[in-house]
Amino acid sequence: MVMRMSTLFLRTLREDPVDAEVISHKLLVRAGYVRRAAPGIYSWLPLGYRVLRNVEEIVREEMDAIGAQEVHFPALLPREPYEATNRWEEYGPNLFRLKDRREGDYLLGPTHEEMFTLLVKDLYSSYKDLPLSLYQIQHKYRDEARPRAGILRGREFVMKDSYSFDVDDEAFKRSYDAHREAYIKIFDRLGLDYRIVAAMSGAMGGSASEEFLANATSGEDTYVRSPGGYAANVEAVVTPAPPPVPYDDAPAAHVEDTPDTPTIETLVNHLNEHFPRQDGDWTAADTLKNVLVMLRQPDGTREPLAVGVPGDRDVDEKRLQAQVEPAELEAFTDADFEAFPMLAKGYIGPGVLGEKNASGIRYLVDPRVVEGTRWVTGADQSGKHVLDLVTGRDFTPDGTIEAAEVRAGDPAPDGSGPLELARGLELGHIFQLGRKYSEALGLQVQDESGRLVTPTMGSYGIGVSRAVAAIVENSHDGDGIIWPREVSPADVHVVATGKDETVFTAADELVDEMERSGVSVLYDDRRGVSPGVKFKDSELIGVPTIVVVGRGLADGVVEVKDRRSGERTEVPLANVVAHLRSLLRDS
Amino acid sequence: MVMRMSTLFLRTLREDPVDAEVISHKLLVRAGYVRRAAPGIYSWLPLGYRVLRNVEEIVREEMDAIGAQEVHFPALLPREPYEATNRWEEYGPNLFRLKDRREGDYLLGPTHEEMFTLLVKDLYSSYKDLPLSLYQIQHKYRDEARPRAGILRGREFVMKDSYSFDVDDEAFKRSYDAHREAYIKIFDRLGLDYRIVAAMSGAMGGSASEEFLANATSGEDTYVRSPGGYAANVEAVVTPAPPPVPYDDAPAAHVEDTPDTPTIETLVNHLNEHFPRQDGDWTAADTLKNVLVMLRQPDGTREPLAVGVPGDRDVDEKRLQAQVEPAELEAFTDADFEAFPMLAKGYIGPGVLGEKNASGIRYLVDPRVVEGTRWVTGADQSGKHVLDLVTGRDFTPDGTIEAAEVRAGDPAPDGSGPLELARGLELGHIFQLGRKYSEALGLQVQDESGRLVTPTMGSYGIGVSRAVAAIVENSHDGDGIIWPREVSPADVHVVATGKDETVFTAADELVDEMERSGVSVLYDDRRGVSPGVKFKDSELIGVPTIVVVGRGLADGVVEVKDRRSGERTEVPLANVVAHLRSLLRDS
Repeated sequence: MVMRMSTLFLRTLREDPVDAEVISHKLLVRAGYVRRAAPGIYSWLPLGYRVLRNVEEIVREEMDAIGAQEVHFPALLPREPYEATNRWEEYGPNLFRLKDRREGDYLLGPTHEEMFTLLVKDLYSSYKDLPLSLYQIQHKYRDEARPRAGILRGREFVMKDSYSFDVDDEAFKRSYDAHREAYIKIFDRLGLDYRIVAAMSGAMGGSASEEFLANATSGEDTYVRSPGGYAANVEAVVTPAPPPVPYDDAPAAHVEDTPDTPTIETLVNHLNEHFPRQDGDWTAADTLKNVLVMLRQPDGTREPLAVGVPGDRDVDEKRLQAQVEPAELEAFTDADFEAFPMLAKGYIGPGVLGEKNASGIRYLVDPRVVEGTRWVTGADQSGKHVLDLVTGRDFTPDGTIEAAEVRAGDPAPDGSGPLELARGLELGHIFQLGRKYSEALGLQVQDESGRLVTPTMGSYGIGVSRAVAAIVENSHDGDGIIWPREVSPADVHVVATGKDETVFTAADELVDEMERSGVSVLYDDRRGVSPGVKFKDSELIGVPTIVVVGRGLADGVVEVKDRRSGERTEVPLANVVAHLRSLLRDS
Repeated sequence: MVMRMSTLFLRTLREDPVDAEVISHKLLVRAGYVRRAAPGIYSWLPLGYRVLRNVEEIVREEMDAIGAQEVHFPALLPREPYEATNRWEEYGPNLFRLKDRREGDYLLGPTHEEMFTLLVKDLYSSYKDLPLSLYQIQHKYRDEARPRAGILRGREFVMKDSYSFDVDDEAFKRSYDAHREAYIKIFDRLGLDYRIVAAMSGAMGGSASEEFLANATSGEDTYVRSPGGYAANVEAVVTPAPPPVPYDDAPAAHVEDTPDTPTIETLVNHLNEHFPRQDGDWTAADTLKNVLVMLRQPDGTREPLAVGVPGDRDVDEKRLQAQVEPAELEAFTDADFEAFPMLAKGYIGPGVLGEKNASGIRYLVDPRVVEGTRWVTGADQSGKHVLDLVTGRDFTPDGTIEAAEVRAGDPAPDGSGPLELARGLELGHIFQLGRKYSEALGLQVQDESGRLVTPTMGSYGIGVSRAVAAIVENSHDGDGIIWPREVSPADVHVVATGKDETVFTAADELVDEMERSGVSVLYDDRRGVSPGVKFKDSELIGVPTIVVVGRGLADGVVEVKDRRSGERTEVPLANVVAHLRSLLRDS
């Protein structure tokens, strides 16, 4: 296969697109791989579509290798199945909804759990039919609030989604592990720098899940890692609960006047001034901060929630959101305070919250708030705090919640050392759905004894178009893209330089020989374009091996350049194809 | 590649789906290729998706071979470009429209003329950049009024659409011819029985166009063909105009009482009774029937049109519709008659229509209504007709229109004999768009002298998913599908029959050997399924070569069966792969 740049539908750009923030967006547009059609919606140009198809093919090969079977669902889907699982509502404004000419409700599929579950229900009926893994590589739609970052987070994108169906958890574990291994092979072949982290499952439901995150500063996900190998999405970090503290000799709780101390900082200053301690200063960590939020359930109802965290930590909204899904967080407004007159704004404490019957508000605390811990916290009266309030003696929360921020230096939950924070870009997500979808849609099979059992499911996604951008995020330099061999739009970029027709004749012959040998070529055969422009284009476009046919021709050699290292080798014309074939074989 | 039926996601059905009317729909569902997800919206199961991808690959190869370059546009498109070309309105209820979260208007692309034109405008600026042909293989959406016939006419479907851009008509002709040749190769490789017919271009605009129609009784298109090779879509048939008739000795036109003759039949009876002719009876062909319709323009305005055809022919609405596009036909209602009091319902004649100033209604006649022809027609008074009304002497229409029905036996316009009517299924459509889109969207390039010129365009479509169904329409028998080799989901269907494990061992080995030789296999390795069921499934599924491993094994032979001819050959085990490879090579 030869693409000739004299006729190739390609125009490289010298300027970054004005709306581009991340490097992959800039480079993919400038190098002529993609082009914006609407916000978050991109067209693939010839080089770009070739890369996308290469990525798809790698994904397909590895999915086939674990026995997953490829199917293809429509993108335009009826409302009913999504209604049955509540997702028609849950997805909120992220879902593209439309009506057909008969006013029937349809959606553009964001993922296809429902459709796969119904299809298996339609065709299968026995435990003997399982295990089963199905997948598709298909266009998906999500109406992102702020589509940006080019194809890294588009509103129409290509995804590989697969679903496993098993009779029990043990069999599911095998399906899950097979996918995990396949994902490792895929991301390795894509040349990505990535890490597998424990993760929450989000709106999909279910429990166990892992994310494959590319290391990238442009990543939207923050995750933590420890020297001992622990890695988790911030939402998934589990706070180790310290052991209970003895409190037999703790003084009784006592309410004190703390005027004008609505913030932790003013409170700590007041404490140090008016209630100095023997054993050192009061710090924010001695205080218990109670934060109120409203949860909006998918059915539209609102419910208050109080979250208690040590005063030296903020509530991390993303972590809290992950805990309360599918509900959405909303602010606790002044109107809400009016509806709960027992709450003293700025001085809220477990005196009211700890007793459900007092306020009716559910009260969940950080896992560090264990039995026996002693706190300074609001006394439910303006200008007053309570000191020496002991957890388990003076108040009992309704439970714990992972809502406090995670900080660099926090201990890893598995004891593998202090945590470090890093940014990552979600490439893939594998997770245990359990029986959420099979139950909601009535998928059952007969077991060995003829009883109906509900299969357990797994869901596995790869952002295929996003992976193209992630590769660029991971693999570029100041001059342009550097494609890994397996995804490059061509094996070799041949650049014919100079005005002499003999150069083009020699390059033509070389390219013909390459084509016959099965080496795919991007051939810069443009007349009247300067060598400088051609070299710049070759760096920008990023084919891993560049062959320059030009001045060396007089000596019977061409220059073979490695795009990544910049290393140049002079190779006799007659040996070029053999040289390339050995390069391709070795990489 | 081996697909084992013991684990393949496939269930064949004994019963036709209740909503299926056409044979391809029945067979593709029964054989487990596709499954309905919603009206006109289908999911592709593993075997089906394999066939679809085989068809796509053939299309891709032949498009690449003519130098067309593959790109990929989104399916979710912004309104603006379609507004600029009027198609946002023109498509009417066939277009899926939706809003995003910011209330922006979007559509699901039915075809992509606008997007291609804008992309070329975006990147290209010189005549040197042309010719250019771009294509994509992509999901398209049309909200059909009555989606039926399975994937033959779905609401979400796969289409190959390409567009050519040329500086002038001569260059366009080369692009058009190249596509035409590519289409011939594609449909030949798909094993289709098809015909190329002259066609109207429909809502796309432009003039010259041809359709590739599969011969199929389930086809929605009626076309005509002549013994001499003329073929045209009914909408495109051009009526040969007879030479003018001398009328010097024609009597003057005279109005006669013809009470109660509002229909052609009553009129002819009345004429024969009261105005008998010397030279034979009056027939419907002696009368001129004037039909009124309203045209609704895309901007919503309504305009009357009168169509005059010989009384022995009906007006063919599809032909008339094709002539007046983008306007839509609407009935001429009683209210409309009230607005034109000079029209005598049932007795309308050129007396009013022929003089534009009398009624203001445009009057177009059949091409057979040439100068000198003599007619009996309405006298614009209830109960009266005018006789001996001579075209060109007594009235002058505003022009001609191809609205009269085409009948078997009508002469071909090229003199190649009498026409015959046939049914066809549109597989592809190639047509000259002209400058409709480039003008509407401002695509211009500089010509050799630096002047801006507007490129001329061609548009070329293939219904890729429809082709899968068309192949089945063309190639099946009472037992099931018969795939042409190039699109078959596998090269060979190996059926292991019997209960003896040695059969399965031998079949396993044979299948392994096939796989090593690059022969793709659908392998019926199911235990506990009777040979009868397996044979029935193999006929239904339609892989062109079936290898039965069973009874013959004792003699060291297997049976190789040709699905199409039913011919069976006993082949020694050791020779099977060589035998198959020669079959695959020869076909």
